[in-house]
Amino acid sequence: MASTDGWTTPAHKALRVRHGFDLAAFDRGSTPGFDGDKTTGRRLMAKRGVVLSELQERLFAGGRTGGTRSMLLVLQGMDTAGKGGIVRHVVGQVDPQGVAMRSFGVPTEEELAHHYLWRIRAALPRPGYLGVFDRSHYEDVLVVRVEDLVPRAVWEPRYDEINAFEAEIVAAGTPVVKVALVVSLEEQTKRLKERIERPDKHWKYNPDDIDARAKWPRYQEAYQAVLDRTSTDVAPWYVVPADRKWYARSAVTELLVHALEGIAPQWPAADFDPAVELRRLAASRAGS
Amino acid sequence: MASTDGWTTPAHKALRVRHGFDLAAFDRGSTPGFDGDKTTGRRLMAKRGVVLSELQERLFAGGRTGGTRSMLLVLQGMDTAGKGGIVRHVVGQVDPQGVAMRSFGVPTEEELAHHYLWRIRAALPRPGYLGVFDRSHYEDVLVVRVEDLVPRAVWEPRYDEINAFEAEIVAAGTPVVKVALVVSLEEQTKRLKERIERPDKHWKYNPDDIDARAKWPRYQEAYQAVLDRTSTDVAPWYVVPADRKWYARSAVTELLVHALEGIAPQWPAADFDPAVELRRLAASRAGS
Repeated sequence: MASTDGWTTPAHKALRVRHGFDLAAFDRGSTPGFDGDKTTGRRLMAKRGVVLSELQERLFAGGRTGGTRSMLLVLQGMDTAGKGGIVRHVVGQVDPQGVAMRSFGVPTEEELAHHYLWRIRAALPRPGYLGVFDRSHYEDVLVVRVEDLVPRAVWEPRYDEINAFEAEIVAAGTPVVKVALVVSLEEQTKRLKERIERPDKHWKYNPDDIDARAKWPRYQEAYQAVLDRTSTDVAPWYVVPADRKWYARSAVTELLVHALEGIAPQWPAADFDPAVELRRLAASRAGS
Repeated sequence: MASTDGWTTPAHKALRVRHGFDLAAFDRGSTPGFDGDKTTGRRLMAKRGVVLSELQERLFAGGRTGGTRSMLLVLQGMDTAGKGGIVRHVVGQVDPQGVAMRSFGVPTEEELAHHYLWRIRAALPRPGYLGVFDRSHYEDVLVVRVEDLVPRAVWEPRYDEINAFEAEIVAAGTPVVKVALVVSLEEQTKRLKERIERPDKHWKYNPDDIDARAKWPRYQEAYQAVLDRTSTDVAPWYVVPADRKWYARSAVTELLVHALEGIAPQWPAADFDPAVELRRLAASRAGS
């Protein structure tokens, strides 16, 4: 494939976490599977966005006509990794009518009174919807583990529990696309600096973000554990290098297209006889 | 303004329902306030979409930092009037993260057990969000009235009740942009025909749509009553001719920009000292 064509290895192959994956050694500025520059990447993504949009509309149409399938995109990543940009630029390519967006922050009191998966279950996409989780149940083995919010004996069994939970969701007809956006410490420094300096980015900045940096190696370790223990056949992790935003966005577009192609949603068959309805339409007048 | 410039009268002036407005006489193929063709309209809308997107982001930023304002777009219209297209093409111009979309269909049993505004209140946008209602509480004086779902004595007081309800929402900091998309019977015929003939549109077609056409004059009358009785100073109706999709979409983009400019959301002030944070950032290392 010519270098200007873009993807030489499909994103779902190039980015899928395999046994032995080493997060520490991972190049966060790389563009796995993609042979092209930013301009090529953006142009290709716009084209693929059209494909994504039609697949999503078919999924939605199915949900409106008795279909039970839906899809879930799980986004994880450190501060500034670009989760918001994925929502805006990738998810923003499809009809907002069919998107069920949910951000998971610090649990509320009500949420804390329940099992940690309670709020997740409640937010699962209904039939036809593309659910998007900005952070997710993985926080319960990431921030919870690093910050010692509960004892190890509590978070340790969660990996298996999460695997079982996701297997159940997938079996029920909702593929789960799990994306870990991985940014380098250097790129994070640049992006935090921008948030501190630019008035239109102040709202995204929280002084606690600096404290979290001090725990960077422990977060990386917690992410490594997530990738080691929860990348399953039915719900694999995709690790997306996030230092180049254009690449990450193009990659997630590809992952969603691939997952939807896996479902292959079809336009629902008519539950009416077109010939009959055309006659009824022709006969109909604005009456009475 | 040169004819290629587009809007010669702002949409919020050209489309606002005034006393004595006559829906029956309304030209549904017209382009009030706009002097230009489809190409001009589309180009202008793309430009204004960028403005809309920034205003929406400021609103969202406010909501994330203690602000209480939000905004609500209410979409009403007969079948095929283009409500879905407004969501996709107008609302689709902003970050999906900040959109709270809600469609109101036939009430569920639980909803029927409550006051008709119960489900509406529950769906009001939280601070920072652009709420979008695809159909709304107005169905309770439209389909409910035309189909005699409850006696006149029940729906008759609803107009005043709705006015009081909306005044309360607006006073609480949520402007309500009410858009009635008005399509002609001829254009509806064309669009229904397309839904019957095209496999990718079958899912949008319901044989009941033909029955509703027989009641067209009664629906027009019910809409006229809505416009007469619920277009208030704090929450006016905008009647948008919907036979030309490009015009309707451009018009609603303008209405949203205008409403957001009325709030004039600002980037939230920093609740930190940038100089201090830059020093902390520079000093921070991936530690421990």
